[in-house]
Amino acid sequence: MHGLMMDYQLTIDRIVEHANRMHPHKQISTKLPDGSMHRYSYADFYRRVKRLGNVLETLGVQPGDRVGTFGWNNYQHLEMYYAIPSAAAVIHTLNIRLSPEQLAYVVNHGGDKVVFVDGTLLPLYERAAGQITCVERYVIFNAPSGTSTSLPNVSYYEDLMAAASDDYTWKVTDERQAMGLCYTSGTTGNPKGVLYSHRSMFLHTLGENLATSLGATERDRLLAVVPMFHAMAWGTPYATLLAGAEIVLPGPHLQPPKLAELIAEERITIAAGVPTIWMGMYQDLKANPRDVSCIRALVVGGSAMPRALIEAYEKELGVNVVHAWGMTEMSPLGTLSKLQSHHDNLPDHERWDVKARQGYVVPGVEMRIVNDAGRVLDWDGSSVGEVQVRGPWIAKAYYRLEPTEEHFTADGWFRTGDVASITPDGYLQITDRTKDLVKSGGEWISSVELENALMAHPKVAEAAVIAVPDERWSERPCAVVVLAPNAGEVTGAELIEFIAPKFAKFWLPDTVIFVDEIPKTSVGKFDKKVLRVRHAEGALG
Amino acid sequence: MHGLMMDYQLTIDRIVEHANRMHPHKQISTKLPDGSMHRYSYADFYRRVKRLGNVLETLGVQPGDRVGTFGWNNYQHLEMYYAIPSAAAVIHTLNIRLSPEQLAYVVNHGGDKVVFVDGTLLPLYERAAGQITCVERYVIFNAPSGTSTSLPNVSYYEDLMAAASDDYTWKVTDERQAMGLCYTSGTTGNPKGVLYSHRSMFLHTLGENLATSLGATERDRLLAVVPMFHAMAWGTPYATLLAGAEIVLPGPHLQPPKLAELIAEERITIAAGVPTIWMGMYQDLKANPRDVSCIRALVVGGSAMPRALIEAYEKELGVNVVHAWGMTEMSPLGTLSKLQSHHDNLPDHERWDVKARQGYVVPGVEMRIVNDAGRVLDWDGSSVGEVQVRGPWIAKAYYRLEPTEEHFTADGWFRTGDVASITPDGYLQITDRTKDLVKSGGEWISSVELENALMAHPKVAEAAVIAVPDERWSERPCAVVVLAPNAGEVTGAELIEFIAPKFAKFWLPDTVIFVDEIPKTSVGKFDKKVLRVRHAEGALG
Repeated sequence: MHGLMMDYQLTIDRIVEHANRMHPHKQISTKLPDGSMHRYSYADFYRRVKRLGNVLETLGVQPGDRVGTFGWNNYQHLEMYYAIPSAAAVIHTLNIRLSPEQLAYVVNHGGDKVVFVDGTLLPLYERAAGQITCVERYVIFNAPSGTSTSLPNVSYYEDLMAAASDDYTWKVTDERQAMGLCYTSGTTGNPKGVLYSHRSMFLHTLGENLATSLGATERDRLLAVVPMFHAMAWGTPYATLLAGAEIVLPGPHLQPPKLAELIAEERITIAAGVPTIWMGMYQDLKANPRDVSCIRALVVGGSAMPRALIEAYEKELGVNVVHAWGMTEMSPLGTLSKLQSHHDNLPDHERWDVKARQGYVVPGVEMRIVNDAGRVLDWDGSSVGEVQVRGPWIAKAYYRLEPTEEHFTADGWFRTGDVASITPDGYLQITDRTKDLVKSGGEWISSVELENALMAHPKVAEAAVIAVPDERWSERPCAVVVLAPNAGEVTGAELIEFIAPKFAKFWLPDTVIFVDEIPKTSVGKFDKKVLRVRHAEGALG
Repeated sequence: MHGLMMDYQLTIDRIVEHANRMHPHKQISTKLPDGSMHRYSYADFYRRVKRLGNVLETLGVQPGDRVGTFGWNNYQHLEMYYAIPSAAAVIHTLNIRLSPEQLAYVVNHGGDKVVFVDGTLLPLYERAAGQITCVERYVIFNAPSGTSTSLPNVSYYEDLMAAASDDYTWKVTDERQAMGLCYTSGTTGNPKGVLYSHRSMFLHTLGENLATSLGATERDRLLAVVPMFHAMAWGTPYATLLAGAEIVLPGPHLQPPKLAELIAEERITIAAGVPTIWMGMYQDLKANPRDVSCIRALVVGGSAMPRALIEAYEKELGVNVVHAWGMTEMSPLGTLSKLQSHHDNLPDHERWDVKARQGYVVPGVEMRIVNDAGRVLDWDGSSVGEVQVRGPWIAKAYYRLEPTEEHFTADGWFRTGDVASITPDGYLQITDRTKDLVKSGGEWISSVELENALMAHPKVAEAAVIAVPDERWSERPCAVVVLAPNAGEVTGAELIEFIAPKFAKFWLPDTVIFVDEIPKTSVGKFDKKVLRVRHAEGALG
């Protein structure tokens, strides 16, 4: 017997309707390429989203069509985040850091009919254009005056908007319809597309706004440093508007001093970005102090934030770090590490231990850890296995790929490829990627644990640990280290001695390589694939 | 094109699974009939819910069967809240304050196969039993030793539980399945049943736990004074467990001094109940001071809390009142009145004006006000019309009744029967029930506004205003007043003079009737149906 409640569909247009109805005066602010601030209200935004709906119709966009976006975080991009799904089309966010080959692959695989390209990024896109076969129309937005392009069939965003009416009826009717497409960077093989539904993204938004979760309200001002081409900007474009929070978009201004300035001047309460960004900002703030204590949650995800940096932010800058974990396949929020009441009386160093974990699951998501033999492991803080998840905002397949057991279990869980333990009180502690573990003499060594220990050294800015082939042990760990500015003379032996008390002797890297920079993937993670090729021999002990 | 996300069903079993997994040590506390406290953990609760699943199977309960509950707020009742829906059956909460005829009507209309009866309430239930035709089995819980009953086919809850295994697999598989049934008290005609689905109740739970909403976390301890037979106890049984909050159930101990004691001793942070309860507790606290400032939200719903009482709680007791509004048909939460950032700098009396409104909609719910001609009205703070709502946790029909235009509009909204204005910043201000408006000389007079004004008089405990027939004006308002203890001599003229400055002259009641008690409906609201019959003539000016 079915219940007798309304068949009310959970669709993205509801969010902008709610935002406009309840919080018309709240602001959306963008730092433009020239450094000035563009500001308008939710009500202005709403009218422009409706106008963009008509523009999409003019462009011939039909329900189900994929519409690419290639841009920075700015208000036009935010308009697309709402208008494209509400027109029952699919917003396909394109990573601006992909190689031309990868970009062409992703656009072609997605089958994008129209692509919106940020005028300041045209040269990047144009490099791939020759290999792109499916796009019928280009729309250039955020274009400096005098912009010209070699792309075919081009219109200009503001011209189309000026000509459109803002009288528009949302087209989406069914919450199961696809609303977004985002490709994972993929450490092996081609990028794979995750196809979000309206339902999954709406529920993710509710999950993110729970008081036990990130919990934005209309009192918050959120800075989205996480790119809008990366895992739906962690859901922040939807979570802010549903909560009535103000959102600040940094445009291309991602340099640490610019971000610190933006946080201080805009009185940001929540800022979301990857560890590299916050590491850079920390170093800048030490050199050029500013008051960033307005932040109630410095949200960090994408990869692990070193415990030492979490501690430094809190002790030295009065900033609460909220460690989060998720994946493109998870919409992306899975866990976050907020302290709970049973931690209140812990000494500081134990509280930082907790905050350095990836945290507890957001209600709605289920997680488990599973060993190589497929056995579900206990949450005892020491058993280590692959993290598997399921829930209403987790992918069940990749776009245009048959689901395989490499990614999805027979009993309906997504295999994250992350390796972790879980404490008895439910805090996830990622120890590695399955692919990044070092297998030495039949024993697993966690590259992430070694990295965190190395990064706790005051003279180390970044450290990546990779496996290098070894005749006797099969693999051995090798550390690749970037020193902090003005670190002076440091030897590998000194660093190994520093971390030695924390590990079994066979875990300690045999070699430490000093480099100026660690190569990063398109989403800012250590690119260990490149490191492994470069340093296959180990060196410079 | 559909998204490729998991078809994860939003069902009630997920909530207890999450609670047990993430917060096994959190407590559920019940004040037993003898005044002692029963406490156990979420983990204990979880095992008992599974055990109850097996008991239901033993009793022959099949998917879709209605299972009645007739009881106070206690842990066994909470076990039923989870086990019955998770067994794919429907929990039908029976109001213990119904007349025997109403109770028999509701049980028969619901077609309950099994009814769980609180042993301390057997005499109340037995009065109706002769007219009940559908029930095959009775289970007595919370039974004092030596309990006996005239009911047929009786088992005892703890006997069945002791014999059952706690190895059980949840039976519910589809979120659209019915999970709960609750009848509205109904001011006219027979009570009408609202049939909740798993999906609607799960989404209601997320809505209630948003940071912008009630926002419980594992730091909260919630006292559910609102009865579990009334509108699903406002969703508190589900919201607390999903958040990891502790829940305290008062059993039959609803007297003001007992509640004040429970709040102070249990360090309650959220307490939920109707205005009558909090009015009684306020008077008790003035006579017998206790520290109840542990409360962060005194949630009040069911009918309007007088502004004067909201002010008194805050000024004199340091307690923040959160005014909420909803209906059985709305699961029930629709709006709640928390202050927003733009109220921060208002003087106290203006802040209390805001808090006396019913507040803004919870994200997920849409509301509008509509006049007699069917025109949707502006949110200007003065236009008054019927409140209509829609959303994922709003009823689309009543159980075993064809939906009619009296309750549901052709364009898919539920007609609440409440009359209200909405401020430009989105705060609902209920002025009356459509049925309780007084129509005098062609003009509408709001009974609720007059009542609130009268109740602001320090010597008035309760005031109800009803329409009495009048030859010249068609109807005129008549006030029925209960004086506060030790009020001494008060005349009707004195009260009318007190409220006169606030209203047009023709609004002022012609008659004031002093009574010892205002009759209440089974859910504690003023029973104006009875008042209108009693005082049809007006009297005692």
